[in-house]
Amino acid sequence: MDKAAFVAGDWGTTALRLFLCNDRGAVLAQQDGPGVSARREGFDSLYDSLIAGWTHRHGPLPAILCGMVGSSLGWAEAPYLECPVSPDQIGSATLPLRGGQIRIVPGLTCKNPFGAPDVLRGEETQILGALDLSEGLRSGTHLICLPGTHTKWALLQDSTLLSFLTAPTGEIFALLCNHSVLVRATTPRAQDDAAFAQGLAEVLRFPQAQILHRIFECRSRLVRGQLPAAAGASFLSGLLIGADVCGAMQVMSKPRLDGARICVVGDAKLARLYAQALSAQGHETQIIDGRAASIAGLGHVYRLMSAPEAKHARR
Amino acid sequence: MDKAAFVAGDWGTTALRLFLCNDRGAVLAQQDGPGVSARREGFDSLYDSLIAGWTHRHGPLPAILCGMVGSSLGWAEAPYLECPVSPDQIGSATLPLRGGQIRIVPGLTCKNPFGAPDVLRGEETQILGALDLSEGLRSGTHLICLPGTHTKWALLQDSTLLSFLTAPTGEIFALLCNHSVLVRATTPRAQDDAAFAQGLAEVLRFPQAQILHRIFECRSRLVRGQLPAAAGASFLSGLLIGADVCGAMQVMSKPRLDGARICVVGDAKLARLYAQALSAQGHETQIIDGRAASIAGLGHVYRLMSAPEAKHARR
Repeated sequence: MDKAAFVAGDWGTTALRLFLCNDRGAVLAQQDGPGVSARREGFDSLYDSLIAGWTHRHGPLPAILCGMVGSSLGWAEAPYLECPVSPDQIGSATLPLRGGQIRIVPGLTCKNPFGAPDVLRGEETQILGALDLSEGLRSGTHLICLPGTHTKWALLQDSTLLSFLTAPTGEIFALLCNHSVLVRATTPRAQDDAAFAQGLAEVLRFPQAQILHRIFECRSRLVRGQLPAAAGASFLSGLLIGADVCGAMQVMSKPRLDGARICVVGDAKLARLYAQALSAQGHETQIIDGRAASIAGLGHVYRLMSAPEAKHARR
Repeated sequence: MDKAAFVAGDWGTTALRLFLCNDRGAVLAQQDGPGVSARREGFDSLYDSLIAGWTHRHGPLPAILCGMVGSSLGWAEAPYLECPVSPDQIGSATLPLRGGQIRIVPGLTCKNPFGAPDVLRGEETQILGALDLSEGLRSGTHLICLPGTHTKWALLQDSTLLSFLTAPTGEIFALLCNHSVLVRATTPRAQDDAAFAQGLAEVLRFPQAQILHRIFECRSRLVRGQLPAAAGASFLSGLLIGADVCGAMQVMSKPRLDGARICVVGDAKLARLYAQALSAQGHETQIIDGRAASIAGLGHVYRLMSAPEAKHARR
């Protein structure tokens, strides 16, 4: 069996995923646990109990953690780094716990394209990972889309993260599906590709429209017999993802992207929907698996930390 | 005491308000009851029990009802009328119950500015009432805004309702306040005028932006110390109402409104916020109380029904 080298941890709001990795960042084992929102304390003991089997076999292991574990509600607060930031700056600003055996990757803050503050935690690590996994991203100007509950759009130039923008697209979709009369709660939620494409096409017909003025169509089209009840959620998904993509391309692509492909980092199903929306608006895409990007990013930080000069500087 | 002439009923999704009126439509007494969503049957007996005191004193009374009571989930389904419709057409298309003693005002359907079906129930009666209450609305082109859970924007020409547009602005605001991490659930909900104005101003600085890309600022501004936690809901309200007004004026005001004031029909507090958003975008407004408009509209239909020729035609 490969020699275990470190623990890579993605500890978000709703879930904790710990990966036992070798020194090349390959995953040897996985342990899941509860997210940050489920607790206010006991991060220490929870972490130790989850990796007990690994330390029993391999001895003490260094760990790199990212996500909400570094927020004011997490284990310890790793202050936000200000954009623009390079991968090395992120890697050198980790918060050490237990004398540096555990390191928490800091979140980032920036001014969004509207001049307002924006923040992220966890996605910085996925972006580091995407840069590791895709050499083509490392030079030139690139837009990375990280879809999810809070979708992030990040603008990179020569591997430096210039700024980003958050859209709570996934959260609003879930709120409407779970609590609104507009999408029936009894509706089966199987993805309906035709309804998704229809919602997307509607947004593209009127790209300047406020999405607020299209959402009621989930209900009115059903009432008027123009949309099957079971297709409401997918139609809504097409509207919301279409509006997210359309609006983001308007404000994020002002620096010339030189025809570069848009990189979508996320789980396969959601990334495919965003890629479809980007493609419908004329943009080629490259998809990188979100879990792979997290692990690669944590491995990137581990290697920065364990380089001899880094050990010297950090300890 | 004034002589009771009829019962005016606004029976919506969440509430029933019955008004005992004289023949000029003045309210003599009021009874409240549960909305349509609370029941699937027993509308007959509920109605009779609520007005029992009135019929005991005044004998059998004709009634005009509007709202979701006429939907497929209500007492009896009054089919949608297609726009464009005149007040007389609405008044002559009521659904008779109990041999015409009770009449339900039909809802309306139209193609919205995007060519999609839209529907309303209850607001048609408030629009009839607004026309009764404000002579200036009866000729020329006018835009009426009826803010609420599902805000309606209605375009009138010479008293004929041409089309309308729905925005679930109030519903999305409530969903985010009640269920989202973006606006803290523990936040006191007192209106913060400065935060509302700030949200509104942000929308006006970037009128083309998708509101999806501004909502996260409720959270990120708080995290970065630029918005007090207690002000989050009001900031969100400014963003959403600003986007609703901005988007609606773009798509609804294409027919020349001839500098006419925009009429806002709703409860005082919400109407004031919409008037503020309209004013910030350079539009003068006139506010009509939503309850008064409902009662006036129901009275309008009652008078149409009780005119001698109408009695002849309807019975």
